[in-house]
Amino acid sequence: MEKTFSISIHEGKPIRCKAALCRKAGEALVIEEIQVDPPQAYEVRIKILCTSLCHTDVAFWKLDSGPLARFPRILGHEAVGVVESIGELVDGFNQGDVVVPVFHPHCEECRDCKSPKSNWCSRFCDDFVSNTRRYGMASRFKDSSGEDIYHFFFVSSFSEYTVVDIAHLVKISPEIPVDKAALLSCCVSTGVGAAWKVANVEEGSTVAIFGLGAVGLAVAEGARLRGAAKIIGVDLNPDKFEIGKRFGITDFVNPALSEEKKISQVIKEMTEGGVDYSFECIGLTSLMEEAFNSTRTGSGKTVILGMEKQMLPISLGSHDLLRGRTVCGTLFGGLKPKLDIPVLVDSYLKRELNLDGFITHELSFEEINKALDLLVKGETIRCVLWMDK
Amino acid sequence: MEKTFSISIHEGKPIRCKAALCRKAGEALVIEEIQVDPPQAYEVRIKILCTSLCHTDVAFWKLDSGPLARFPRILGHEAVGVVESIGELVDGFNQGDVVVPVFHPHCEECRDCKSPKSNWCSRFCDDFVSNTRRYGMASRFKDSSGEDIYHFFFVSSFSEYTVVDIAHLVKISPEIPVDKAALLSCCVSTGVGAAWKVANVEEGSTVAIFGLGAVGLAVAEGARLRGAAKIIGVDLNPDKFEIGKRFGITDFVNPALSEEKKISQVIKEMTEGGVDYSFECIGLTSLMEEAFNSTRTGSGKTVILGMEKQMLPISLGSHDLLRGRTVCGTLFGGLKPKLDIPVLVDSYLKRELNLDGFITHELSFEEINKALDLLVKGETIRCVLWMDK
Repeated sequence: MEKTFSISIHEGKPIRCKAALCRKAGEALVIEEIQVDPPQAYEVRIKILCTSLCHTDVAFWKLDSGPLARFPRILGHEAVGVVESIGELVDGFNQGDVVVPVFHPHCEECRDCKSPKSNWCSRFCDDFVSNTRRYGMASRFKDSSGEDIYHFFFVSSFSEYTVVDIAHLVKISPEIPVDKAALLSCCVSTGVGAAWKVANVEEGSTVAIFGLGAVGLAVAEGARLRGAAKIIGVDLNPDKFEIGKRFGITDFVNPALSEEKKISQVIKEMTEGGVDYSFECIGLTSLMEEAFNSTRTGSGKTVILGMEKQMLPISLGSHDLLRGRTVCGTLFGGLKPKLDIPVLVDSYLKRELNLDGFITHELSFEEINKALDLLVKGETIRCVLWMDK
Repeated sequence: MEKTFSISIHEGKPIRCKAALCRKAGEALVIEEIQVDPPQAYEVRIKILCTSLCHTDVAFWKLDSGPLARFPRILGHEAVGVVESIGELVDGFNQGDVVVPVFHPHCEECRDCKSPKSNWCSRFCDDFVSNTRRYGMASRFKDSSGEDIYHFFFVSSFSEYTVVDIAHLVKISPEIPVDKAALLSCCVSTGVGAAWKVANVEEGSTVAIFGLGAVGLAVAEGARLRGAAKIIGVDLNPDKFEIGKRFGITDFVNPALSEEKKISQVIKEMTEGGVDYSFECIGLTSLMEEAFNSTRTGSGKTVILGMEKQMLPISLGSHDLLRGRTVCGTLFGGLKPKLDIPVLVDSYLKRELNLDGFITHELSFEEINKALDLLVKGETIRCVLWMDK
């Protein structure tokens, strides 16, 4: 079955369309008509089919000061779209291709992109503040008064159309339902990748996951796919145990109920000395340290996925480290987007990878503020917004 | 060529022999006649052929307070010997076998010994304070007044005879010169193993080694064997560069001469962004942190070998970690003694592994205090003491 997506082509011309603008930190997004300029060299203009919301969107929506607080801005970085037109020097993408935009670059040409050891594109990764990847603060968006609108993480998916650099774009099979594909743009890839590529979880192993948001649940899903025998979820919300069971969570620890005992102590007692793998998916140094202390002496591995907001350091017992433990951090789950997202698509199509379970709500793009509210209140894992509904 | 070592057999009886006793912290060792009891079940009595001295011996020689300060004691844990007699239930060892005693246990039966992921024998590793592995504080040594003498790290090689548990004993090929084999008992195995098994250094990679003592030089040797392209030594002693060249050191950084710049900054400039692998071989948290900061974003790996004396934690930038870095610690270079020491022996016999370069001095056992003095003053890499010379 070949799917097609009907799109109007405006090659070389600006497109006028709707976008949800963040005009002021923390205030309701405003759906306005904007202008999306044609893609320049190495860029692709895509029609967003659906987008979902992630806590990083919320963090930047709330951010009211500092150099990263920029308005007006089009947030959104978890999405799927279809290619409307391509700029010069674009190979490998054609009109009508189904594509996943990704905040994490993959230029395929730098030393690190060519190395199997790293997913850190050293050509592009250090700049995460520009609007466009190769054109600095040049924006492809203008509001009705002609003012430039800021991009977000090189994606800006809260718009009917957006312009994305080819280093941030992955062509995928049109076989996969697009709402499911959107999840591979950020959260699911990050979590599954951490279990698969970074930890390399093996059959029969034990796992602890600190924080059962979408990323933590995706770590569980990755560990489940790898055949982990025991997957312990740690979360303050007791509802997360039932939800987590869909993704392979076998045991649950609620820190609020562990009384005097440290979480690491509880986990050690549950696993005869500690888990083989622990994952921190929140971004608190205290939990990173507890995750570290939860692992087995001699071989325990801790993977840090959570972004610590205050730039605080993590403090590790040097003797605990010396006794054969490993700690590593990862962005985008150690995945190289263009190589690994198609593998995850394939895994979904083979009915291995569970993506359906992550989608708890579906709304129209017009209802984006409701979706934001659901996420802020913790009432959704992923809410998918359909642009055309 | 089959070598034989002439030994008198005193099976089932005590042996009277000479040992160098540490009677008081920091005072000259005293060579006295002692009694070495017969081995019990799972134990082997060995005639030490030669022993070398390690900084851990010095640390425990100086230690004057706390529960680990015990006297009189027979120090020494880097050695080679020949089996004189075996206790009950000993398989795999026979009189006349050449053996390397190792402080790091390998029971071969626990979950971790059976796992390829760990060299942390969970059955025995947690107890490093007993005299004998399976008999608690029972000692096999008595002085001339009949008083028990403390063992050290289950080896106590500063004695003509010692009793070692089979979990701490590795049978090796008698082809290897015994003075070279002694080095595999601790320092060389630790360093080479860290580069080989823990970091898995690959051809063409870049390496920084903080501290060029015997362990640091052995890391260099391991990295050289693995084909590293650039091996940067970091040491305050400028003489270490020339010495290091024998083991593959290609570049040298003297922190005393780097003025305002941090060592990590200097190393990043030397390597276009940081080394692939860094190793801390001293035990200072400030250097562990510099080693971490010296590695390449996206893939850098830091291996901690140095034992921090004051139980201080190591502090790592959580964002630096998140950007794809790894930190791990290791004891005995991640090697499983019974499996991996024979591999190193073989590598030496094939003229790959350089062991000869580590031996800067050879003395008779009677001159042990001179050897200790040389090590304390930093004038030796390894001084081998011959028991029969």
